[in-house]
Amino acid sequence: MQELRQGIVLTEAVEMAAQPVSVLITGANRGLGLEMVRQMLEAPCPVRKLFACCRDPDGPRAEALQTLAKKNPNISVVRLDATDLCSIKLCAQQVGSLVGTGGLNLLINNAGIAPKGTVQETSPEDMQHCFNTNVMGPMNIIKEFLPHLRDAVKASGMPGMSINKAAVVSISSLLGSMEALHSYAFFPAASYRISKAGLNMLTVCAAEELKKDEILFCVLHPGWVRTDMGGEEADIDPPESVQGMLSVMASLTEKQNGAFLDYKGQSIPW
Amino acid sequence: MQELRQGIVLTEAVEMAAQPVSVLITGANRGLGLEMVRQMLEAPCPVRKLFACCRDPDGPRAEALQTLAKKNPNISVVRLDATDLCSIKLCAQQVGSLVGTGGLNLLINNAGIAPKGTVQETSPEDMQHCFNTNVMGPMNIIKEFLPHLRDAVKASGMPGMSINKAAVVSISSLLGSMEALHSYAFFPAASYRISKAGLNMLTVCAAEELKKDEILFCVLHPGWVRTDMGGEEADIDPPESVQGMLSVMASLTEKQNGAFLDYKGQSIPW
Repeated sequence: MQELRQGIVLTEAVEMAAQPVSVLITGANRGLGLEMVRQMLEAPCPVRKLFACCRDPDGPRAEALQTLAKKNPNISVVRLDATDLCSIKLCAQQVGSLVGTGGLNLLINNAGIAPKGTVQETSPEDMQHCFNTNVMGPMNIIKEFLPHLRDAVKASGMPGMSINKAAVVSISSLLGSMEALHSYAFFPAASYRISKAGLNMLTVCAAEELKKDEILFCVLHPGWVRTDMGGEEADIDPPESVQGMLSVMASLTEKQNGAFLDYKGQSIPW
Repeated sequence: MQELRQGIVLTEAVEMAAQPVSVLITGANRGLGLEMVRQMLEAPCPVRKLFACCRDPDGPRAEALQTLAKKNPNISVVRLDATDLCSIKLCAQQVGSLVGTGGLNLLINNAGIAPKGTVQETSPEDMQHCFNTNVMGPMNIIKEFLPHLRDAVKASGMPGMSINKAAVVSISSLLGSMEALHSYAFFPAASYRISKAGLNMLTVCAAEELKKDEILFCVLHPGWVRTDMGGEEADIDPPESVQGMLSVMASLTEKQNGAFLDYKGQSIPW
């Protein structure tokens, strides 16, 4: 009886942790993006259609992703440059033809840059580039993939909101919090903070605007992670951050629409 | 005795309401900017050097400002286009030569635009233009005028922070608050909200970065005002908004460095 109960509990747990059918990740060639690809394919129910996007799929910085893709037919490596609207449109077309009427369940805006300077050190060009990559990019991506997210809502037939239906999760940062203004002296990153505040507002606006379409939007803080971006002195390794974020994503419902959460699921003040 | 006390109270009130010597206002040709110019000159101690900046000082939209300037020698009308770095640099040079070692006490980033569309309706060009005007503009202006603000700190010799010493007040909006997300259905203005969240973060960063230099930074919400931008259905008229904001500005100390306040002095959540 105990064994049977455990069996039932296990089945339920697996069902609850069911993955979305189709997922797109930007900046999937390294750091957190690559780790997300890995863990999504190692899950009990691996993602069936995983679009791993990066700027230069044939370049040396995409080798690890390409190696993974060769071993796993569920991965499609697709070119997408967040600063290039044409590449976003082409990617959306390509993904559309591959997902068909099932649509895209989960879009993860992970690509981003993190310049480090103070307000005084940031040139107009740096500021512009950071805004283009971290805010305009996600905005254009959301707009171009909306038809596929809407298709996923239609195809799902489920009530409420979840990443198994249709969701956009954007990777933000605690540094985008004005309430907290975390460690400015140590890591000023003015243009990065401004861009993440912008990304947070974009998410809040999209969440409000598209709630009637039952598409969920939220922003996640991955923690301070040992990646090329986070540096070697960071708190945690990519596997821990991604494990946490995927668990948070799996638990999202309409209650978290427009929320700002960390990788442990804790709410962060704006 | 009662009369004497009232006399003392009045003198103190006038002293407390003492104006900064030099003030620069962007977007000073109409709406809130023009009303600020008016009220600053009608004050018991009028501002002595008032730099009223606008994009096209010789154009038809600056006529009211020019009429005011002809009657009042304290006003200098100076060309400044927030989207044009060269015009900002030239304006900073011109103002520098006029204020000399006394520096600039108060810089009011008032110029801005307010596009109205939803996330879905906002084109990349609209988004870019809004960011350039409302975030890049104030950032470049702050950077170019920093030497004059630092001169004002040196010249002041006063302890603490105030607009009589050196301050940057940027006109933001309640619509830049993510916590509140005010009336999205009625006035979506996605690009405007994103830009104001960015301006708020710029202010918080600059406040932290420049507190050691004793330059005060804060953002103000003017209320919903009957101007070309706010429309006819708004709550209050420009005189009421500006009277409130000038009173809030006069009361600012280091305690409000990095704050987000409305025209009544109430704190607004980020």
